[in-house]
Amino acid sequence: MTGKNSVGYKLSALGTRTFQTFNPVENSYNETIFVEAVSQEIEEAVLLASNAFEEFKGISHFKKAAFLSRIAELLTEKEDVILQRYIRESGLSYERGKIEMKRTIFQLTSFSELVKENNWRELSIDLADDSRIPLKPDLRKMLFGIGPVVVFGASNFPLAYSTIGGDSVSALAAGCPVIVKSHPLHAGTGELVANCVLQAAKETEMPNGIFSNLNAEGFEVGVALVNHPLVKAVGFTGSIKGGRALFDIANQRPEPIPVFAEMGSVNPVVLLPKSLEPKVDEWSTMYADSISASCGQFCTNPGLLFCVKSNASDEFVEQLTKKLLQKDAQTMLHPSIHSSFERLKTERLEDEAVRYFEKEGELDCNVGRQTIALVSGKHYQNNPNLEEEVFGPFSLVVECESVNEIIACLKKLNGQLTASVLGKVDEVNEHLDVVKVLQNKVGRIVFNGVPTGVEVCPSMHHGGPYPASTDARFTAVGIDSIKRFARPIAFQNCPDELLPGELKHSNPLNLVRREK
Amino acid sequence: MTGKNSVGYKLSALGTRTFQTFNPVENSYNETIFVEAVSQEIEEAVLLASNAFEEFKGISHFKKAAFLSRIAELLTEKEDVILQRYIRESGLSYERGKIEMKRTIFQLTSFSELVKENNWRELSIDLADDSRIPLKPDLRKMLFGIGPVVVFGASNFPLAYSTIGGDSVSALAAGCPVIVKSHPLHAGTGELVANCVLQAAKETEMPNGIFSNLNAEGFEVGVALVNHPLVKAVGFTGSIKGGRALFDIANQRPEPIPVFAEMGSVNPVVLLPKSLEPKVDEWSTMYADSISASCGQFCTNPGLLFCVKSNASDEFVEQLTKKLLQKDAQTMLHPSIHSSFERLKTERLEDEAVRYFEKEGELDCNVGRQTIALVSGKHYQNNPNLEEEVFGPFSLVVECESVNEIIACLKKLNGQLTASVLGKVDEVNEHLDVVKVLQNKVGRIVFNGVPTGVEVCPSMHHGGPYPASTDARFTAVGIDSIKRFARPIAFQNCPDELLPGELKHSNPLNLVRREK
Repeated sequence: MTGKNSVGYKLSALGTRTFQTFNPVENSYNETIFVEAVSQEIEEAVLLASNAFEEFKGISHFKKAAFLSRIAELLTEKEDVILQRYIRESGLSYERGKIEMKRTIFQLTSFSELVKENNWRELSIDLADDSRIPLKPDLRKMLFGIGPVVVFGASNFPLAYSTIGGDSVSALAAGCPVIVKSHPLHAGTGELVANCVLQAAKETEMPNGIFSNLNAEGFEVGVALVNHPLVKAVGFTGSIKGGRALFDIANQRPEPIPVFAEMGSVNPVVLLPKSLEPKVDEWSTMYADSISASCGQFCTNPGLLFCVKSNASDEFVEQLTKKLLQKDAQTMLHPSIHSSFERLKTERLEDEAVRYFEKEGELDCNVGRQTIALVSGKHYQNNPNLEEEVFGPFSLVVECESVNEIIACLKKLNGQLTASVLGKVDEVNEHLDVVKVLQNKVGRIVFNGVPTGVEVCPSMHHGGPYPASTDARFTAVGIDSIKRFARPIAFQNCPDELLPGELKHSNPLNLVRREK
Repeated sequence: MTGKNSVGYKLSALGTRTFQTFNPVENSYNETIFVEAVSQEIEEAVLLASNAFEEFKGISHFKKAAFLSRIAELLTEKEDVILQRYIRESGLSYERGKIEMKRTIFQLTSFSELVKENNWRELSIDLADDSRIPLKPDLRKMLFGIGPVVVFGASNFPLAYSTIGGDSVSALAAGCPVIVKSHPLHAGTGELVANCVLQAAKETEMPNGIFSNLNAEGFEVGVALVNHPLVKAVGFTGSIKGGRALFDIANQRPEPIPVFAEMGSVNPVVLLPKSLEPKVDEWSTMYADSISASCGQFCTNPGLLFCVKSNASDEFVEQLTKKLLQKDAQTMLHPSIHSSFERLKTERLEDEAVRYFEKEGELDCNVGRQTIALVSGKHYQNNPNLEEEVFGPFSLVVECESVNEIIACLKKLNGQLTASVLGKVDEVNEHLDVVKVLQNKVGRIVFNGVPTGVEVCPSMHHGGPYPASTDARFTAVGIDSIKRFARPIAFQNCPDELLPGELKHSNPLNLVRREK
């Protein structure tokens, strides 16, 4: 562990501003000193990326695929040392780390496969028609990478949504060099992972600058990267405040660039009344597990449960609370995240109309007390701040008088990553407006399940209307996330010799093409 | 002709601010008085659109397709009366009007076909795996309309990129109600076309609010529409200043929304030296036609020609100038567009290093004098303002010392809709950097042709890096333009009864689906 920046293949530490990561379980700083990147290093990383972008275009898709799968191999080899660091920089468990590593590796191999198959480029061909007046030209188009991409790692996913997580791997797969603004909470994990990426890049002869990893505790490095004219897109996972700030900077540039920020979500859950009664036990278990998973530090954590007040709902709340509070409390990612959790939770609980049940007893430092709060539908509707996300093991149950009141609450919701509807088909059919209203608010609707455990597969859509994400049209999870970082270029009457192999007349690469 | 606004199916003229359109050929106002929309009408149009959005979802794709094709039929029926008005509000010729009408109708029938086939929704299915630990859920996703869309008509395409032009028809096809901010230069044409759209909507039983047409001469109506919380996307064709202003407003909203602005482009052309000599006659004819088509008032007008100074290039410039200046000068769209052309052209020509040849003689009002200007590559490189678009029949020839100097000029270009490369394959191969550099700058590369005459077909890409458009990832022409106005929604473990027909297990609509 060096604490240095990787500017392409070069280690560099020109700056004087330093920081350390923190072990929230031991409540102490980890030993390595990280050196924040300075403007010279930023400039060099972006220039290298811009040059690498050109060179990368000329590299075969087989070699690109080999690069991605080699990263996966190296992560597998280094898994133990990475996970040891991961635990010390996040407070997350070894088991959680194993799962996240598996997910990260799966993403790498999925994209490696996608690049190798080379069928993601939306190849489209319209043949010329010389008999038409005016002549119809030959037109062929395909997707190309958009240019260098800056990725901001996520605090809560040191592996799967950070250094070589979903944003980075989809950008590389699209043909875009990546500059990671390493997350300061787990800069050491980031360095170890970056080393695997860079080693794989060298072994597979990728151009210098295809990947850089820059350290920063403050916001200046990120701002400088987003403002750099040669940067063409940004991936971000984090808070609404942080995502919106980057979005605003990117849109105020002389040349605006897209920012794909995956931000806040409370992931509303609707428990339909008739269906609830026989399911109290099952659903309360399911949701106690979901709310507490990884100490509630998931963007898909169910933070808002809507039910119709009844004996069954009382029983559900009782069981949910009991099951949730029985669990061992867990350490949160960082003291700052813990204190933010406490502050936001307290804001909710200070409202006199809100009742609550909180994990009791003495707890270690930085441990989040899981909490269930309760409020009436009427009070909820008059207090829009109750929708705000409390990042951590917290959920607010909204007790309504009727399904219609639930629908009235749903109509006021901001954009969300997910919504869940729990109910038998017949009862959902009685209240189709629940689904209709939610459909306008979310990117994914879950039936009779929990929103956590985001499956990585082509049909996943992880991205919802603002403020869940900055562009609801794109997913941050699954192979379709590559579309964020690609744009079409059309070739008109291009001589066959000059066409990319993907578009040549004889289809030498034997690809799927829309052809007319 | 009423001069009123269409707020859904209702004619409305609550305002007091009025304006008239102008006949640039006769240099006089047309008779109808148009009443600018007021906030009450804006509010009502958006609310109706938002409600229509919900209702529209429940309408079969066959009925939606019938709506679009019925518009095409009504436009055909009313073609003569529409074109009479078109000519009086644009100064464009009857022949040009016929071509544009044909294009508009073709777009309507293409999208009608697309909606009927219903294969644009990117259907994706991942089947559940109950044997996996953890259980793999069933996931299905498809595209849905994004919500009400505001369309700003283009001054230079009163039919094909205005009231029911490319933006409107692609939004409707995606399932989005459309509110048109009618272009004030051709508000009468807009009203006639809007009447066809509304009649077709009524006949095919579309919900009230699926389409509205609002008049405005000032910018306030447009700003209010873009700021309305229920509006979810914007289509715009026009100037960089106008497009950027709307883009900024949309991005500063509490909930930002996408703006697809197709703005400025000078469409650089590179004439390779060895290939030029035997082609002087052919290429000069081709480019004289392209520069003068519709008085140069096309977004794909070739405004910048790069050549290597030689006897052949001198001969090319001489012939190009002769052929261009021989043509009859044409009336521009409006006195304001004519004066803007004169002003921008004068700015270029006042530069002492710029030589030029201009159409001479006495001309009628509002007629644009076609002009060829000449400058050295060296001077061009030091004067970045020379790249700025002069909207009208103007082209700047940049005489370079070598292809390398051309490449140096190209590297400094802003984003463009198109670039054209004229040269034999062998010579292009000698200078592949020309193509490589241009590829990063444009949305479409034309070989041995002209950029004007944008073919409407699936493989067309009409949209380039900023400032050619605000999002290079989307086309404004062709069926793929539907993707601007659609977003995916994923359904997790959704009971079959509740799934949209497109995603049901048995594939009852017999659609193409990505399935795993």
